Amino acid sequence: MAVRHYTLDFNLSTAVECASVVPGLLSIFHEQELAETIHDTNGHGYLATFVGKNGRLVILRVHSHGLVTIDLQCYEEDNVAQLDNLLNSLEKKLKVILNGNIARTKKLPPLVRGAKVDRYWPTADGRLVEYDIDKVVYEEDSPYQNIKILHSKQYGNILVLDGDVNLAESDYAYTQAITGSGKENYAGKDVLILGGGDGGILAELVKHKPKMIKSVYIDQKVIDGCKKHMRKTCGNILDSLRGDCYQILIEDCVPLLKKYVREGRTFDYVINDLTAIPISTSPEEDSTWEFLRLILDLSIRVLHPKGKYFTQGNSVNLTEALSLYEEQLGKLSCPVDFRKQVVCVPSYLEQWVFYTAWKK
Amino acid sequence: MAVRHYTLDFNLSTAVECASVVPGLLSIFHEQELAETIHDTNGHGYLATFVGKNGRLVILRVHSHGLVTIDLQCYEEDNVAQLDNLLNSLEKKLKVILNGNIARTKKLPPLVRGAKVDRYWPTADGRLVEYDIDKVVYEEDSPYQNIKILHSKQYGNILVLDGDVNLAESDYAYTQAITGSGKENYAGKDVLILGGGDGGILAELVKHKPKMIKSVYIDQKVIDGCKKHMRKTCGNILDSLRGDCYQILIEDCVPLLKKYVREGRTFDYVINDLTAIPISTSPEEDSTWEFLRLILDLSIRVLHPKGKYFTQGNSVNLTEALSLYEEQLGKLSCPVDFRKQVVCVPSYLEQWVFYTAWKK
Repeated sequence: MAVRHYTLDFNLSTAVECASVVPGLLSIFHEQELAETIHDTNGHGYLATFVGKNGRLVILRVHSHGLVTIDLQCYEEDNVAQLDNLLNSLEKKLKVILNGNIARTKKLPPLVRGAKVDRYWPTADGRLVEYDIDKVVYEEDSPYQNIKILHSKQYGNILVLDGDVNLAESDYAYTQAITGSGKENYAGKDVLILGGGDGGILAELVKHKPKMIKSVYIDQKVIDGCKKHMRKTCGNILDSLRGDCYQILIEDCVPLLKKYVREGRTFDYVINDLTAIPISTSPEEDSTWEFLRLILDLSIRVLHPKGKYFTQGNSVNLTEALSLYEEQLGKLSCPVDFRKQVVCVPSYLEQWVFYTAWKK
Repeated sequence: MAVRHYTLDFNLSTAVECASVVPGLLSIFHEQELAETIHDTNGHGYLATFVGKNGRLVILRVHSHGLVTIDLQCYEEDNVAQLDNLLNSLEKKLKVILNGNIARTKKLPPLVRGAKVDRYWPTADGRLVEYDIDKVVYEEDSPYQNIKILHSKQYGNILVLDGDVNLAESDYAYTQAITGSGKENYAGKDVLILGGGDGGILAELVKHKPKMIKSVYIDQKVIDGCKKHMRKTCGNILDSLRGDCYQILIEDCVPLLKKYVREGRTFDYVINDLTAIPISTSPEEDSTWEFLRLILDLSIRVLHPKGKYFTQGNSVNLTEALSLYEEQLGKLSCPVDFRKQVVCVPSYLEQWVFYTAWKK
């Protein structure tokens, strides 16, 4: 049983004495049969808590610098109309009491805490966002990560790995961006996909009749989930690990890349779709950045001299991480040039940077 | 001075006795020199509030059905590292106490309440979302509405009318969608734009060498703000109210539409970009839906028999409002057909429906 947490805040144009605000509001709380406690705040304004018989908790603070905050916590099955009434009464009364002194009133959609289906998946740049998620359709803990596929009314199913929104069925813009925005000719080409367990890139590229695509992904359980629940993304491509022009290898890409380097094998396109937080079974790559650089270096080494390397970067707001990544691009054993592009991926709720790199 | 409000919640696999959880946590609170109050909850679990000397407030609830919620409110200038430490200690301790019984831990980005620059602008479908807004660049109350232009790092400047996100400089996808997704030939055509005070549609269409565009917008103050602060959207088109192939009329569109109907004047394209919550100075249109139907009816009456009517609809999740709108389309004095399209407008943080209508 979840808790609904309402907030109702008033920014005042000028600070007010608590004594001028509180008595007028108390009558409203008393009508609700709430048990009142007034707390000593050591000079930080007025603070009272009110506890109801049905698990309701109201917190009223009149901050000395001109801010009134009200919190209302209640159980999910509580009477919503009654609570709306309470909040509206408080708002109306405060408007009368503070006549003309309210610079801003803010009543946010309630936070739903402890719900069976969690709707809050913060962005990479750390903002609080609520999704329209109504169902968990798949959940597994693999040896590598926690895997969830969540249903959203507007984005379709969303793959979430270790709490990070990876890709939704609405996100063809992601697949487009990481395959070169429709400007590449994959016909007859050799392609290597690193990551991409959702099958979106593979499903897109097989349409272009490449010579052969090797798709390397470590986690069978992601493939199992996506095969069943992300079909708007992968179509039927994950139903078989092998087709006329593709092969899906369930393994760690690092040893495979090393083998390709040893064999002198090259690809016309290398597409790095590994998750933002890297996963590796090799003990030698401890830190995220070392792992990133290792993958990058190996990828460029198996890239044909005229080939292209595509990858996703990060939130456009994480400028420091993006700079660090671009620094890595300058440190490879084989010099590369790169360009970047900012793309709106619908389910991300933030702008995302994609990179294209090639050998100088 | 804003209040930062942290939440830290634990869903338990099985309900626990408060007595098994609380004593272990109390030592952490006592270290913080917080004044403790234990409240009587009438059988709804354990509830304690802790008040600090610096305006800090912590609320600990152990709900009887297996949910632990912690709230921490503090002032903006409080020591963030210290607070992180406190939350981390609580989390670590609870993990030890509830060893293996935690199904989910959720620590959200803190709500910032009462801040000078408000970052929370809920979506049309009622979800809580935080924007990366760092500055208010324009704010005016016109006779018609509250106008804000807010700066976002990733979306550029965002026009917000009466609290609704209207358009950001990143949102060329909106302009594209409401002008027919690049599939129309505007050259030599007569166009009527209703609304669109940001100038985005007008700036786009003049590139296509139409015969004449009449753009009707009621609120000079929106134009003033956008002219200065939304130049990635409007370019220099709002600098002058009249150009070779366009004219901007600052007036209510209803009387003008009625005049066009009387004169038998028609347009090849009518683009309705009025805000979602309609504004009218005419007293006859009381309700939102009546106003919508009136505008729709007049628009179709001034539409050339082979013309097209473009408009934005609503959040794809507001299925009831969309159905109602489509119902209106069936009730016009002149029968129309329509199609719709779902578009990702970057700054909206939700999928948006656009309509195209034409005379049967």
